[in-house]
Amino acid sequence: MVENLKTPCILPLMKKITLLGSTGSIGKQTLEVIERFPEELSVFALSAHSNVELLSQQIAKFKPRFAVLTDQKFYEALKGKVSQPTQLLFGNEGLQQIVSQPEVNLVVDALVGAAGLLPCLDAIAAGKDIALANKEVLVMAGQLVTKECREKNVRLIPIDSEHSGMLQCLSAGKISEVEKLIITASGGPFLNTPVEELKKVTTQQALNHPTWRMGKKITIDSATLMNKALEIIEAHWLFGIEPEKIKVLIHPQSIVHSLVEFQDGSIIAQLAPPDMRLPIEYALFYPKRMPKVINYLDLSSVDKLTFQEVDLNKFKAVTFAYQVLKQGGTAPAVLNAANEMAVNLFLQEKLSFIRITELIEEVLSRQRVEPNPNLEVILEKDRWAREKTLEIAGTKL
Amino acid sequence: MVENLKTPCILPLMKKITLLGSTGSIGKQTLEVIERFPEELSVFALSAHSNVELLSQQIAKFKPRFAVLTDQKFYEALKGKVSQPTQLLFGNEGLQQIVSQPEVNLVVDALVGAAGLLPCLDAIAAGKDIALANKEVLVMAGQLVTKECREKNVRLIPIDSEHSGMLQCLSAGKISEVEKLIITASGGPFLNTPVEELKKVTTQQALNHPTWRMGKKITIDSATLMNKALEIIEAHWLFGIEPEKIKVLIHPQSIVHSLVEFQDGSIIAQLAPPDMRLPIEYALFYPKRMPKVINYLDLSSVDKLTFQEVDLNKFKAVTFAYQVLKQGGTAPAVLNAANEMAVNLFLQEKLSFIRITELIEEVLSRQRVEPNPNLEVILEKDRWAREKTLEIAGTKL
Repeated sequence: MVENLKTPCILPLMKKITLLGSTGSIGKQTLEVIERFPEELSVFALSAHSNVELLSQQIAKFKPRFAVLTDQKFYEALKGKVSQPTQLLFGNEGLQQIVSQPEVNLVVDALVGAAGLLPCLDAIAAGKDIALANKEVLVMAGQLVTKECREKNVRLIPIDSEHSGMLQCLSAGKISEVEKLIITASGGPFLNTPVEELKKVTTQQALNHPTWRMGKKITIDSATLMNKALEIIEAHWLFGIEPEKIKVLIHPQSIVHSLVEFQDGSIIAQLAPPDMRLPIEYALFYPKRMPKVINYLDLSSVDKLTFQEVDLNKFKAVTFAYQVLKQGGTAPAVLNAANEMAVNLFLQEKLSFIRITELIEEVLSRQRVEPNPNLEVILEKDRWAREKTLEIAGTKL
Repeated sequence: MVENLKTPCILPLMKKITLLGSTGSIGKQTLEVIERFPEELSVFALSAHSNVELLSQQIAKFKPRFAVLTDQKFYEALKGKVSQPTQLLFGNEGLQQIVSQPEVNLVVDALVGAAGLLPCLDAIAAGKDIALANKEVLVMAGQLVTKECREKNVRLIPIDSEHSGMLQCLSAGKISEVEKLIITASGGPFLNTPVEELKKVTTQQALNHPTWRMGKKITIDSATLMNKALEIIEAHWLFGIEPEKIKVLIHPQSIVHSLVEFQDGSIIAQLAPPDMRLPIEYALFYPKRMPKVINYLDLSSVDKLTFQEVDLNKFKAVTFAYQVLKQGGTAPAVLNAANEMAVNLFLQEKLSFIRITELIEEVLSRQRVEPNPNLEVILEKDRWAREKTLEIAGTKL
């Protein structure tokens, strides 16, 4: 009787979350947000690739039902560090299991690169809402993923700060009334570097982002502005907006994350300090907003907000978005794969900074685009593009 | 048969509009918007105070069913200039008639000052939606007006650019999730004038607004920043937000019209070139947006956007809003009446610029606040405040 009163049938909804990529930058910040709202959110499952140390700490703290390590060779090491009640799984089968369990209310896909696609499709197939931090999922397979979401009535909520901003701004009108989506770009560490000096920049300089603290891959993407190409493609699929209506503007202060211009001339913008916990919270609670997720912005302490056109001669990567969306089919997946490989080569100092974009351009020019690809065709093209990138670069990872 | 086909029963809705104050700045721009969308909007009735010349031109062009001249002494002059089918009416009875006719779908209240209150209440009593450009209506009688609107299920849609912006931004969350409403102020012509030099400024200088072209009354209100006090009160009643959550920030570029900070820390802002045709269109079509109402803003051509705190020592008028909202009852009506009189005296060069605010403060300090006033009590206090203002100023209009 007393027990029953303590656990009434009508409980306030506690969202059970499967977090893919819990040891990465977004993963860690997602856990910070979850920790902040213990009445509303709980961790059902965690996954990491190889960071045994941090994953075991997270397991001890959040006591998830499941934890997955995708890199099998560290599995034994993890096993020694984890006690009941968390069940350990591994590999892609482990991921498939934790995204599709009946108890799961929301899957946070914070994996990096192409690895995020399969578990995301598995989660959609299981009818789970997705909070998507992995933009490559929509870049590689936007058509396929959004089609599956519609069929399964699954919500795909962006964690990307620009797209979270757009989602908020779009409340002020109808999609059919949108004249332009404007994605802002800080411009990265090389905004004011003359184009001829880009040849000499080091990996360390490229990793030194002026406004955001992020993972390595996305930090390099922010330096080439390839990040914005991926975001244009992501916005196209998320909101169903034609590519020619999606524009990038340089905004070095990273306060305005995106703007929506409606056809009457009114512009709605989203502003916040650069802190990923805000788009994470918005995705976890959408459309509800929780109190004091980040520090409030004091606009009067902001020196100024400025906007400028992108120098497409210097940051040619941005134009690839329009090119591959026009080509359609497998072209965006090839862009993504070539970029992932080129960035890896650059991080390993096997490629110069300006060669990243050149190399991608060469891979794009050699592809044969397959229209309306299924998952197999996409993954095959992804493999082809990776090999072709290494081949042209004349090196190995 | 052919006639029937030409006029089917199921017509797209053509909104019939009664426009109060058609010869003023907002009135003229409202007619520009109506003219731009002849399939959707038509003029049912026009009203003006004394500008016979312009009103007769508007009547010839828009052929309204009714036209009202409120200043009776020009009535005969107008009569000679107007032919059928427009029926001429006069005085407050005329206004009452044109706001309450069954055919009217929307009443635009673009009257200036306290004169807009009675016809607005008549329109609400007749169940008409209101597009409200006259902020004094809500300042004088916010409690009464919003209560009547709720009872009659009438929509009160702001034409004020800041409030139109707030209405748009508020779509991105719930009223209960609002942390702060931020109304921007250009700062007017004296933003950078040292406080000790304010004593010497002329009427002509005060009428020279840096960013907006508006009527005289509102231009002076923008120079004292009393405009922002009135807008705080207006926002309080329109959106049901506590005064302490409403803040004014100086934004000299007049591009960002307002911002809503939600409790999670996300800020949604509305931007547009300073052009009243946008808030007019938004109010006339709310929540629909029509194409190309104003020129699109090229953000990359905007030098910078800046925000700063208001110097409340120099622009004390802003603080009156919080004072009178705290006092409640008739206090805001007294503020409004004292301000109208003081501005008139200043326009007639019978009062110095700094005396406007001082005079209002003295009137406020001598009032006896009546709680929960009805219309009669409000109008009586309005009269009291006008007389008291003249008495303290020691002059007449």
